[in-house]
Amino acid sequence: MVNIKVAQTAGFCFGVRIAVDMAKKAGEQLGHAYTNGPIIHNKQVVSYLESIGIKELKDYSQLKPGETVIIRSHGVPPETERQLKSMNINVLDATCPFVKKVHDKVRQLVEEGYFVVIIGEEGHPEVIGTLGHLKEVNGQGVVVENFEDLIKKVPKRNKIGVVAQTTQSEDFFREAVGYLAENTEELKVFNTICDATSVRQEEVKKLAPTVDVMIIIGGKHSGNTQRLAQISKALNPNTYHIETAEELQKEWFEGKDNVGISAGASTPDWIINQVVEKIKQLKGVTA
Amino acid sequence: MVNIKVAQTAGFCFGVRIAVDMAKKAGEQLGHAYTNGPIIHNKQVVSYLESIGIKELKDYSQLKPGETVIIRSHGVPPETERQLKSMNINVLDATCPFVKKVHDKVRQLVEEGYFVVIIGEEGHPEVIGTLGHLKEVNGQGVVVENFEDLIKKVPKRNKIGVVAQTTQSEDFFREAVGYLAENTEELKVFNTICDATSVRQEEVKKLAPTVDVMIIIGGKHSGNTQRLAQISKALNPNTYHIETAEELQKEWFEGKDNVGISAGASTPDWIINQVVEKIKQLKGVTA
Repeated sequence: MVNIKVAQTAGFCFGVRIAVDMAKKAGEQLGHAYTNGPIIHNKQVVSYLESIGIKELKDYSQLKPGETVIIRSHGVPPETERQLKSMNINVLDATCPFVKKVHDKVRQLVEEGYFVVIIGEEGHPEVIGTLGHLKEVNGQGVVVENFEDLIKKVPKRNKIGVVAQTTQSEDFFREAVGYLAENTEELKVFNTICDATSVRQEEVKKLAPTVDVMIIIGGKHSGNTQRLAQISKALNPNTYHIETAEELQKEWFEGKDNVGISAGASTPDWIINQVVEKIKQLKGVTA
Repeated sequence: MVNIKVAQTAGFCFGVRIAVDMAKKAGEQLGHAYTNGPIIHNKQVVSYLESIGIKELKDYSQLKPGETVIIRSHGVPPETERQLKSMNINVLDATCPFVKKVHDKVRQLVEEGYFVVIIGEEGHPEVIGTLGHLKEVNGQGVVVENFEDLIKKVPKRNKIGVVAQTTQSEDFFREAVGYLAENTEELKVFNTICDATSVRQEEVKKLAPTVDVMIIIGGKHSGNTQRLAQISKALNPNTYHIETAEELQKEWFEGKDNVGISAGASTPDWIINQVVEKIKQLKGVTA
């Protein structure tokens, strides 16, 4: 007997799921397409997508009219999309809806007369896209990623508007907003931080204490997966962090019938499914 | 020879100056009027105003039609003003313009659909007035004065608007705004903290190191005056904190010709002028 509970929030976040699905469909239907940069940090997924004809675009000059480019979750500046279209490229937009919301809010803030502060990493693809939308509406703004940036880069203005990179840490966001409110007359803040990571962690906190064994799937070097394993281990010492089903060991499950599973943000469902099947096999249960 | 520099920001803030001037005029012209609560925390000023017929209103039932009530800097709920007018009371409104701005911003936030968080002291006269304006436009909101209030009193809302009591400390304001931004989708903050105190301190920081002696005038128990004296002493050890000209001692000025003066928020100009004249006298200079 084995009872396996897979966390609902295990694996891909909403945005990554959309982008990978789109790449998969493009591969299956067109047999050839590009993604503007790596679509996900997971070797297995990238290998699979390459096997069906999806490659990372290294240089725009390699593109030929009629070819397809998938814009990944991070989004791009509107100029990039226009440029691709002017080259007669077929553009599939997999920009994460939460990133699109950041673009919309930046435009709204500019319309309402705010100087825009983007809390995030200068040079991060998502931020480059957001800055493109700021420029598109002739907005003024800066990117801040630490306290020094706040002091040095934010000019004295009466109306300041704030958005955050969707993967921004809450700590600096809170600090930056507090500082900005203190140093302006009117501050409007859109909290555009995506809660996928914290929601995934919350579910592990609930699941881990209720099972005999917890399996956390994801890259050994993936920060969000390590954190997930750490949280799980604190609540259930029988926690194992694996990358693929091959690493599972029979003795982990001896006398343990209730198994919980979660996975980091870059782990696709099929790897999670392989883990589920392998555990059933080790427990002598066949579908 | 003596060279006396009085700080431009010494003494009354803008709002208190307006209220005291209005009370003085009312006393001189009408010979009898009330203030709704103490107009200022300074014994000398209150005694003077009493001598010209200005008393603190203890109970609304003591008012007779045709009498005059001066609304002090803190402001009142609109209902109070209506009530007074319905009793045929002559209302003189000395509400500080910066407090009126808080009222306007609360109304604006309600119109724009925000749940209002007032950062300030529950029960403080200014906050009671502000809550009256919130109620007037059927707005929803709470007052928070510490972190516990934030956790307990602020409900989960998508749009939160913030104003501050004009005398709110910057530290909790910053902390509260950061927390609220983290826990809502859209936050609009009007920084309504009055900078009179910090501007007065900045001027003392500049003045103290350039003179031989610094005189800080204001109540010995007045927090803002104590702080002013503390800042001055750190930059100029020859700093003396006095309440009136009588406390000045001749030896403080021996061999010291450059004197700087500043004063706390409740110190009227005439007390500052008496100090200036007394120093001239001690230095053997007559006007």
